Amino acid sequence: MKVVIIGGVAAGPKAASKIIRMVPDAHVTIIEKGSFLSYAGCGLPYYVSGEIKEQRELMETSAGVIRDTAFFRNVKDLEVRSGTEALEIDRAARRVRIKDLATRQESTLEYDKLVLATGATPVIPPIPGVDKGNVFTLHGVHDAEGIKSVLAERTAKDVVVIGGGLIGVEATEALVTHGCRVTIVEMMPQILGMLDWEMARLVENYMESKGVRVLTDTRAMALEDRGGGGKVTHVKTDKGEVPANMVILAIGVRPNVALARQAGLEIGEKTRAIRVNDHLQTSDPDIYAAGDCVESIDRITGEACFVPLGSTANKQGRVVAVNICGGDEAFPGIVGSSICKVFDYCAGRTGLTERGAESAGYEVISAMVPGSDRAHYMSESKPLLMKMVADRKTGRLLGVQITGPGEGAKRIDVAATAITAGMTIDDVAGLDLSYAPPYASAMDNLITAANVVRNKRDGFMVGITAEELQRKLQANEDFFLLDARTPEEYAEVRLPKSTLVPLGALRRRLAEIPRDRDVICYCAISLRGYEASRVLAGAGFRNVKVLDGGLAMWPFEKEIG
Amino acid sequence: MKVVIIGGVAAGPKAASKIIRMVPDAHVTIIEKGSFLSYAGCGLPYYVSGEIKEQRELMETSAGVIRDTAFFRNVKDLEVRSGTEALEIDRAARRVRIKDLATRQESTLEYDKLVLATGATPVIPPIPGVDKGNVFTLHGVHDAEGIKSVLAERTAKDVVVIGGGLIGVEATEALVTHGCRVTIVEMMPQILGMLDWEMARLVENYMESKGVRVLTDTRAMALEDRGGGGKVTHVKTDKGEVPANMVILAIGVRPNVALARQAGLEIGEKTRAIRVNDHLQTSDPDIYAAGDCVESIDRITGEACFVPLGSTANKQGRVVAVNICGGDEAFPGIVGSSICKVFDYCAGRTGLTERGAESAGYEVISAMVPGSDRAHYMSESKPLLMKMVADRKTGRLLGVQITGPGEGAKRIDVAATAITAGMTIDDVAGLDLSYAPPYASAMDNLITAANVVRNKRDGFMVGITAEELQRKLQANEDFFLLDARTPEEYAEVRLPKSTLVPLGALRRRLAEIPRDRDVICYCAISLRGYEASRVLAGAGFRNVKVLDGGLAMWPFEKEIG
Repeated sequence: MKVVIIGGVAAGPKAASKIIRMVPDAHVTIIEKGSFLSYAGCGLPYYVSGEIKEQRELMETSAGVIRDTAFFRNVKDLEVRSGTEALEIDRAARRVRIKDLATRQESTLEYDKLVLATGATPVIPPIPGVDKGNVFTLHGVHDAEGIKSVLAERTAKDVVVIGGGLIGVEATEALVTHGCRVTIVEMMPQILGMLDWEMARLVENYMESKGVRVLTDTRAMALEDRGGGGKVTHVKTDKGEVPANMVILAIGVRPNVALARQAGLEIGEKTRAIRVNDHLQTSDPDIYAAGDCVESIDRITGEACFVPLGSTANKQGRVVAVNICGGDEAFPGIVGSSICKVFDYCAGRTGLTERGAESAGYEVISAMVPGSDRAHYMSESKPLLMKMVADRKTGRLLGVQITGPGEGAKRIDVAATAITAGMTIDDVAGLDLSYAPPYASAMDNLITAANVVRNKRDGFMVGITAEELQRKLQANEDFFLLDARTPEEYAEVRLPKSTLVPLGALRRRLAEIPRDRDVICYCAISLRGYEASRVLAGAGFRNVKVLDGGLAMWPFEKEIG
Repeated sequence: MKVVIIGGVAAGPKAASKIIRMVPDAHVTIIEKGSFLSYAGCGLPYYVSGEIKEQRELMETSAGVIRDTAFFRNVKDLEVRSGTEALEIDRAARRVRIKDLATRQESTLEYDKLVLATGATPVIPPIPGVDKGNVFTLHGVHDAEGIKSVLAERTAKDVVVIGGGLIGVEATEALVTHGCRVTIVEMMPQILGMLDWEMARLVENYMESKGVRVLTDTRAMALEDRGGGGKVTHVKTDKGEVPANMVILAIGVRPNVALARQAGLEIGEKTRAIRVNDHLQTSDPDIYAAGDCVESIDRITGEACFVPLGSTANKQGRVVAVNICGGDEAFPGIVGSSICKVFDYCAGRTGLTERGAESAGYEVISAMVPGSDRAHYMSESKPLLMKMVADRKTGRLLGVQITGPGEGAKRIDVAATAITAGMTIDDVAGLDLSYAPPYASAMDNLITAANVVRNKRDGFMVGITAEELQRKLQANEDFFLLDARTPEEYAEVRLPKSTLVPLGALRRRLAEIPRDRDVICYCAISLRGYEASRVLAGAGFRNVKVLDGGLAMWPFEKEIG
């Protein structure tokens, strides 16, 4: 069996290694245009930051062996041709025309099965100046080396990161580590489009507390060189200009489909990525595709989507191998899990955002639930800020978003599993999650969040979003904003125009609460706010609401001191 | 509506608070024998260790408010009678006879609904000397204070912990923190009975590396006072004696069912805990029970079991409240998730152990899979040692066990969710878990483990357990033990009687491998060992096996240097 694999970074080598393990006498050739094989692309921001010290660590196995051509030949029994470009696929003859980029010699390779693992390429915005010096993407090893060499010169004090997605945010952290003043320029009203606006806003606030300037709703118009040295000095935006000794372009990637297109393989209309069936076969059953060049199916909506991730690439590489070797395995699709580290916060989501669920046609019910990531009396406990989204009709869990310094990845992964299983919020509330004070509270954050959503669904709690409350405050609407915390907490920080009525005093101070106005209750995390709303409901008050997420998730100005 | 709740620690207050939130004018009374309300029982080991500084922190809400009688009255609108014992239930009259332990006055309380949240009591082993000074359990606040006062005297250098379960292990860590020399005396062949033997053995080895003596298969026979001061000085066991200035009895707890039994309520035959239906009603539908006094249903086997945990108690308290307030909610049962911190290791499991699955009648397939808990090139990455158990026939995931310094709780919780959903190992391998280098590898440990189990199921890998290999080594059996690592790794540490044939050299050194003997391959984590076995299989070798878990999970002696 002759297998040719085009692409030597993630899905390609994974498929190749697995094929050899399943069919040891298969003949597998990997074609890779670049010089680096099987490197940790997702590690590049950490190589820039210095967390990863040496370039070779990006190519090492966990046992410390470099994955180079010799490694693939000796250890994996694979032929790897790096520095080689695949030019054309001849499907009728089952041949790939290739070109050695060093010698410029062309030749052909025959295949029984072909795998396209051609990856993706960073999108370069169509603005003037992107070809200037000190302008980089952060996609390959060369990009990282370029950024590192500028950092080594210590000339790049001001850096503009264009695009506030995962890579932009990870690059920002890496650059701040080096003492750079970083400005993120993001066209959309928020960074981290994987999150709902108010969750992203919490991350923005946190990044600003770390000295990062976050300019949302701002469009980069040109990269300018005012020094005449051929290097960028300023970024012109539609809202003014920002000085920049270096610019990172991080507005996203585009799947590499030229070869597939040339071969007449089907391309997704919406995604512009290679279309595959659940066995990862393209429209030619002898040609498979995997990794950053293919589209995936969202398991919740059933829609095709383009979410390039190393985790998906590796899983897909294995599925391709199994099917090529005569097995029968489906890649089940994705649920939109993604996560990134932002200084000491994590920012993650799985499933649908509220916005995404609404546009998919769901009647959404959601909750914002802050809490400790472990027993609150443990010194290591840290706040975790969670948003949960469910389908009001069926109770099905649709999505979870998390930020904050606490252990977020755990809850994202549990939620991803629950969403995959089609669990409802009632199912989630009954999960037997592991409990010990160093790892969780007796009621895990996910269980509490599911219970808050259930309380809303069952009519025990009426929420109001921070955005809506802020609108009311700014419009000077007439309502009673009840702070249910202690006098000490209130003295320290509170919402504007709020009145302190500690929960413990509320039952005897009911006369102070107006019955003819809306009452909005809040506290630190909206547990006491919720309890206050129940006390008021019990006393016959109507139009009582609870601030979603409490002070902990309030993204706007507070009154301090 | 009058509700009486007997028990004021976990399930009781949880049910009470939720009832008031649902039905604000309900009249709810909590009866608590002790003086401490709603305290963090699971935090006691951390109060002993000093991690929790003040006793009051055990009773504080996350906002720092003490949960005392006044708190429950003012904030929660609950009447709490602490220092009050429930003596008898008159089901016909719906009355509870109670006694104020301070005044010794008896009275009766009427109820519409009664909740038994009577908790559990530590089992005192039937051996002489348990009444001596410096002998403690670690169940309530008083126990913790007793232990702390002995520690404050600095007289307890040698401590014997009788029982190596969760509490015993947590107590051990707390005592070592104080500089004590701790010996665990455990009757069974292993500590942490929630784990399979070989997983527990890894924890034992680690504890011994921290200076703890772990005596398994050892029975405490008597606690002796040779000093004549009324305090324990020695623990006599069936294998010799151990000096002890303090003894912690941690052999387990027994559900408090006297009141239920007196009232003629049904008690589980096997569990000896109060039997409840899925709505947590006892055999009297007006009497509910929740928390450490009830039996649960194992969602995998359908069997009744007794697994007292604060997490379960809290969930059950809520279910009881919903049902009392006219709702209709089932407690779904448990999947056996438990976890504890052991110095810098975690030890956790969910679902069934291999042993448990076998005795439940499953044909088991399992894998031992060590790996990094995040991208191996991140400086924070730590080893995670995982065992996965599945049903060979259906592929259903039955259980996961974890130890090691890595992030174990995350994977336990994901597995608990997958088990609850009835997922197969194929489902687990396809999960879209969140990936970024600071949080996971591209292939999460759980996905890798599922793939190893699948490789075994599909005939690509034949495993041999460490125990079986150790038996072969000790019996001097004739087989070839192939170390597939590098010369450098081999020089540092290796298995006895092993031969180094690095994976990269194996294909050209096949002639050195005997074809007439069993070949067992291993490496650090058994990935290269597995690949070596595939090379040999491809070259026509038969009887090739791979050491489950590799060197990383080998619990016996190694050759060093």
